[in-house]
Amino acid sequence: MTGRVSLVGAGPGDPELLTLKAVKRLEEADLVLYDALVDPDTLHFAPRARRFFVGKRAGRPAIRQDAINRLMIREARRGHRIVRLKCGDPFVFGRGGEEALALAAAGIPCEIVPGISSALAAPLLAGIPVTHRGMASAFVVVSGHAESAYGPVLRSLAPGSATVVVLMGLANRVPIVKELLEAGWSTRTPAAVLLGASRPGTDEWHGTLEGLLADDVVDAQDLPGIIVVGAVAALAGVISAQDAVRHGMDARRASSLG
Amino acid sequence: MTGRVSLVGAGPGDPELLTLKAVKRLEEADLVLYDALVDPDTLHFAPRARRFFVGKRAGRPAIRQDAINRLMIREARRGHRIVRLKCGDPFVFGRGGEEALALAAAGIPCEIVPGISSALAAPLLAGIPVTHRGMASAFVVVSGHAESAYGPVLRSLAPGSATVVVLMGLANRVPIVKELLEAGWSTRTPAAVLLGASRPGTDEWHGTLEGLLADDVVDAQDLPGIIVVGAVAALAGVISAQDAVRHGMDARRASSLG
Repeated sequence: MTGRVSLVGAGPGDPELLTLKAVKRLEEADLVLYDALVDPDTLHFAPRARRFFVGKRAGRPAIRQDAINRLMIREARRGHRIVRLKCGDPFVFGRGGEEALALAAAGIPCEIVPGISSALAAPLLAGIPVTHRGMASAFVVVSGHAESAYGPVLRSLAPGSATVVVLMGLANRVPIVKELLEAGWSTRTPAAVLLGASRPGTDEWHGTLEGLLADDVVDAQDLPGIIVVGAVAALAGVISAQDAVRHGMDARRASSLG
Repeated sequence: MTGRVSLVGAGPGDPELLTLKAVKRLEEADLVLYDALVDPDTLHFAPRARRFFVGKRAGRPAIRQDAINRLMIREARRGHRIVRLKCGDPFVFGRGGEEALALAAAGIPCEIVPGISSALAAPLLAGIPVTHRGMASAFVVVSGHAESAYGPVLRSLAPGSATVVVLMGLANRVPIVKELLEAGWSTRTPAAVLLGASRPGTDEWHGTLEGLLADDVVDAQDLPGIIVVGAVAALAGVISAQDAVRHGMDARRASSLG
């Protein structure tokens, strides 16, 4: 009997933000293949399963994508139930579509379980609604890893017409900001940098689009970080979405708004 | 002692797509205020709570927004734990930001629990990855309820530079498509209409941007519906994200692709 593969979104890090369906699939799993950003506590929901780390270490993949696909296909043909656990949502970056296509081509039953994307959760947990009546009726999520990814969108988008959320863009922060300024966005547009989403040690920077050009915006370029640009970013000073203390934020916000 | 309000995302409909944190808050709740699109089974997680429907009936609000805010503030001051249950994610449309601001102004402790947005889950469950290497490195989510909401974004966005996801846009389907065509999008761009997200009776239409102009695209304009435009929409024919039968889809897809 052929097994099956569930491509499961693990959400932004906090195990409490897993879905009931994700927990159920982990409990049933024979094998879990997990990424670098998946919280270790998440794996406690899969006590029966063998577990393989297939993410990146020091920026390099522990195992190649085609090897991950072959492993899933082989184990499913042995009748195993496999959970491919991806941080955030399987279809927001992270190659979920490629894995689903490889499984479909091999005739392996595959289901895809959505997860909470950090593209939305990180702004929310920082008190930033990506849409807000009178401020933003649209938002754009874009990968900042290369100019070919973010350039065409950010160059064309009418200034202020949408909240902009950039993932994987910390290393290209300066060219990304310059792209928006050249397209006519105001230097004073509110902006934020959010590190680590719902993980412990979360840090944040709040200021303006022009302020994002400064050298000292972020301390830790190796953490997953998100850039948010748009009027709604200023609401972070008023809305507090979390009971938990957010490390270092209050002092930073006071200085950036002061 | 002051109670607290949790603004909780209920996800796209299927109760299994609730987060563990959402379930925990429902279990603890003294009072649940819920929207029209929240699945009744979700409320089973809140056996102790009084429950109030505060959504829309036949397009008109059962209770005004300022009355919802006053009710939450009054009940929190009485020491109650309140869950304000919103379909999807609290900060993707749906006025979560306004409610958070009203609570902050009244000094009521408030936490915001992210939910799975149907803007991402509906495409996923239809087999459409909103991002896909070589096809889309960005996506736009926009409200289609009024030209002032979708016009500035859709007119400016470079054709093909992002997957476009339109919520609440079925009634304005034709002007939305014309906006994209006038902006230079190809008539043959793959497109889909997704009704009901993860709810029973889900229906789908698959075709091209030009095909979206036809009269018979959707049967049920009163269901919540999502329009997806972009190369990735064609992957729905290859990726199957759900084990469940999707009603009426195969025949429709065959005819639209045929």
